[in-house]
Amino acid sequence: MSKLTDLIEDLVTANRILATQGIVDSFGHVSIRHPDNPKRYLLSRSRAPERVETADIMEFTLEGEAVDAKGRKPYLERFIHGAAYEMRPEVMSVIHNHSPGVIPFGVTGRKMRPIMHMCATIGHEVPIWDQHSKFGDTNLLVESMAMGRDLAKKLGKGRTALMRGHGAVVVGADLRATVYTAVYLELNAKLQMQAEAMGKVKFLTKGEAQKVAATTTPPNVNRAWENWCRKAERPYRE
Amino acid sequence: MSKLTDLIEDLVTANRILATQGIVDSFGHVSIRHPDNPKRYLLSRSRAPERVETADIMEFTLEGEAVDAKGRKPYLERFIHGAAYEMRPEVMSVIHNHSPGVIPFGVTGRKMRPIMHMCATIGHEVPIWDQHSKFGDTNLLVESMAMGRDLAKKLGKGRTALMRGHGAVVVGADLRATVYTAVYLELNAKLQMQAEAMGKVKFLTKGEAQKVAATTTPPNVNRAWENWCRKAERPYRE
Amino acid sequence: MSKLTDLIEDLVTANRILATQGIVDSFGHVSIRHPDNPKRYLLSRSRAPERVETADIMEFTLEGEAVDAKGRKPYLERFIHGAAYEMRPEVMSVIHNHSPGVIPFGVTGRKMRPIMHMCATIGHEVPIWDQHSKFGDTNLLVESMAMGRDLAKKLGKGRTALMRGHGAVVVGADLRATVYTAVYLELNAKLQMQAEAMGKVKFLTKGEAQKVAATTTPPNVNRAWENWCRKAERPYRE
Amino acid sequence: MSKLTDLIEDLVTANRILATQGIVDSFGHVSIRHPDNPKRYLLSRSRAPERVETADIMEFTLEGEAVDAKGRKPYLERFIHGAAYEMRPEVMSVIHNHSPGVIPFGVTGRKMRPIMHMCATIGHEVPIWDQHSKFGDTNLLVESMAMGRDLAKKLGKGRTALMRGHGAVVVGADLRATVYTAVYLELNAKLQMQAEAMGKVKFLTKGEAQKVAATTTPPNVNRAWENWCRKAERPYRE
Repeated sequence: MSKLTDLIEDLVTANRILATQGIVDSFGHVSIRHPDNPKRYLLSRSRAPERVETADIMEFTLEGEAVDAKGRKPYLERFIHGAAYEMRPEVMSVIHNHSPGVIPFGVTGRKMRPIMHMCATIGHEVPIWDQHSKFGDTNLLVESMAMGRDLAKKLGKGRTALMRGHGAVVVGADLRATVYTAVYLELNAKLQMQAEAMGKVKFLTKGEAQKVAATTTPPNVNRAWENWCRKAERPYRE
Repeated sequence: MSKLTDLIEDLVTANRILATQGIVDSFGHVSIRHPDNPKRYLLSRSRAPERVETADIMEFTLEGEAVDAKGRKPYLERFIHGAAYEMRPEVMSVIHNHSPGVIPFGVTGRKMRPIMHMCATIGHEVPIWDQHSKFGDTNLLVESMAMGRDLAKKLGKGRTALMRGHGAVVVGADLRATVYTAVYLELNAKLQMQAEAMGKVKFLTKGEAQKVAATTTPPNVNRAWENWCRKAERPYRE
Repeated sequence: MSKLTDLIEDLVTANRILATQGIVDSFGHVSIRHPDNPKRYLLSRSRAPERVETADIMEFTLEGEAVDAKGRKPYLERFIHGAAYEMRPEVMSVIHNHSPGVIPFGVTGRKMRPIMHMCATIGHEVPIWDQHSKFGDTNLLVESMAMGRDLAKKLGKGRTALMRGHGAVVVGADLRATVYTAVYLELNAKLQMQAEAMGKVKFLTKGEAQKVAATTTPPNVNRAWENWCRKAERPYRE
Repeated sequence: MSKLTDLIEDLVTANRILATQGIVDSFGHVSIRHPDNPKRYLLSRSRAPERVETADIMEFTLEGEAVDAKGRKPYLERFIHGAAYEMRPEVMSVIHNHSPGVIPFGVTGRKMRPIMHMCATIGHEVPIWDQHSKFGDTNLLVESMAMGRDLAKKLGKGRTALMRGHGAVVVGADLRATVYTAVYLELNAKLQMQAEAMGKVKFLTKGEAQKVAATTTPPNVNRAWENWCRKAERPYRE
């Protein structure tokens, strides 16, 4: 139970960090799988991440039903989270964001690849999901399990996927590592745009990307997490 | 009357938000149509938006006459507002701004189109008004109703229009939604510039843009508004 | 005398504003001609503009001799100021800065021209001074009256000139208007870079630039000045 | 001894400055050679630079052995520092960073050269080290003296070297001057990217670069250092 309380506080912190690091603006969301029940996940009510508080965290079934809404309105796009947890049992955290750098890649079809060691966890090549391919003209929101599952399929076994004209989804085995990947996915986007305008880029080789990703251990991620907590004016818990 | 008081406070907040979000610098302005008299609008005296206070809000006829100036000096370009209210009875709020991203589009004639779902409310294609076409060499300021009406004509039934070598005008059926559109017009500009430098862009289809725009409802806009209020250090009123 | 005190306070404020607006980093400087003696100018001792205080303001002859140094070390490049005051009797303020946007123009020889109304005061086309042409390999600093005069000659009757591999000089008939021009010179640089990468740019016509520049009156400049004072945490004096 | 205490405080300050100036994010590090023992260097324990405190500073042999770890965990990549001190007796400070501007140069092989006078200390042409050339697929971290020495060899007699897909190393005869070079290396990267997209660049000539670098004396560097201290909320010591 104390583990759950700690995790919920971490989830609130993750919301604030994603906002202060520029990964979400007033939209976007981050969830964790329930530590005691893999068929449930925890996600804020519909609110800007920078404003999220402990009392905003709701519990959902994988299908996106609120377990005890207490009048709180959920995010329309919560199905992104449930579908990823459903398809990927090892995934413990999901982020959906629209950080500015990922958009140009999604709408041009340019593939993002890791350009520096910090960005290795985005995966060797980031797939792009176009909601239009299967669902035609929509409001571009992932507002059903069918859409969430189609996106999760595109994500496959990876850590990240872009959504054309919309944003990205990032998953991980751990909340903090997932935030880390979302932060460096945005940096990769910015740097790849600049580098490809300058000439042919030598990306990380597959071997390099795998070896670097293996070094992204909790002590390493925590070096950033401590720093981000302070910038987000949240307490740091090791 | 309490409704008017609330709206005026919202208008002050809108000024501060537009400044803290980088949509206006020391120039630019935002108005609302008077809630009790459609032939009037409310707009600050000539002052930087980030400094605007309740006592700065003045009332104007659609032709731009101050109803009770009390010595306050109005913005020279208030005719942008009056002409839009005159031509478009459903418009309840008008913003004139020079956010940096819109300038390169206006001066090159490149058409802006919605590149991501948040930006759908800018309209399918943003028209560009060149004051020079009708008025020749001017100081580029919209300082008469004739100029304001010419600009309103270019705006047509849309939500946004660019002004070559000057900035943009954004209108809406609601103050908060208009601020929202102005914020995401700027983001669209920045992203479209980057994406078009990378390759062919798949913009939102007309159908997608319409469907997304329909989801930009008050609860959605308020998610951003609450967040922007806090960043602008203004109270949030639901 | 009270006029002098007020002007010196304005000069301190100008230093802080240039820093908070990103026009100078730890280097660069701003001066005013002495209001009671046109053969003298006032300039801080060698210190980062954001740190400048009233007691740092020194008085110089046009040749750059400190009138009463009191142990204070002057800027090496003060000759930029003196030479401009010497050649241009109507100039009352001079800024030397290295804001990032102006550098790419100076080193590529691309001419800067006013792209939007706020930027009209930079002049129809900004000349570029290359110290190397006359002085060969130097440390690129303007450390003599001979160099300062050569730069002033390139400036001619204009308001701004770029210095290749170094920065810019901005002059004006009034301290606040000069700060205004320096701020919008930087914006022009950024926007022109972006716009020219997108296509052919329709700059302000000569007639437009002149007409806009004529509207840059004290009330207009003060709208920005009040706002900048607050951001620089300095009192505003009308 | 008091000299050592002062230097350690400066080292803490350097960590904070590099963070507030955007030269390091949560990663990267800065060291000084021990003032009393050239076979030792001082470097923080593994922590984000913006969080580093006096008690975090550890002492290492040139081979990277902690002299008295007291349970503190060192940076994995400390070998970058030791190898540079070993090969270059005159070097008194080393920085390893991943500031965003340097990455595109490292991965495209584009050579960075000084574009403006502030950036002269980066050297006439910045070499690029590719860990892959000698070590094949690695995790891209410099985690042995063999790697550190290979990097130091590429650095040669220079002040800066880029590391492909990773970052940069900057060395100097003095802590403050080394921080100065790291700050302006990043600015050079940003400006060179923009300028080369606009046209042929006239870089500083070799003679100019040498003459400017000679003016980067302690009084000059301290003008920036005082300003950076204040921004980093650290006391300034002349």
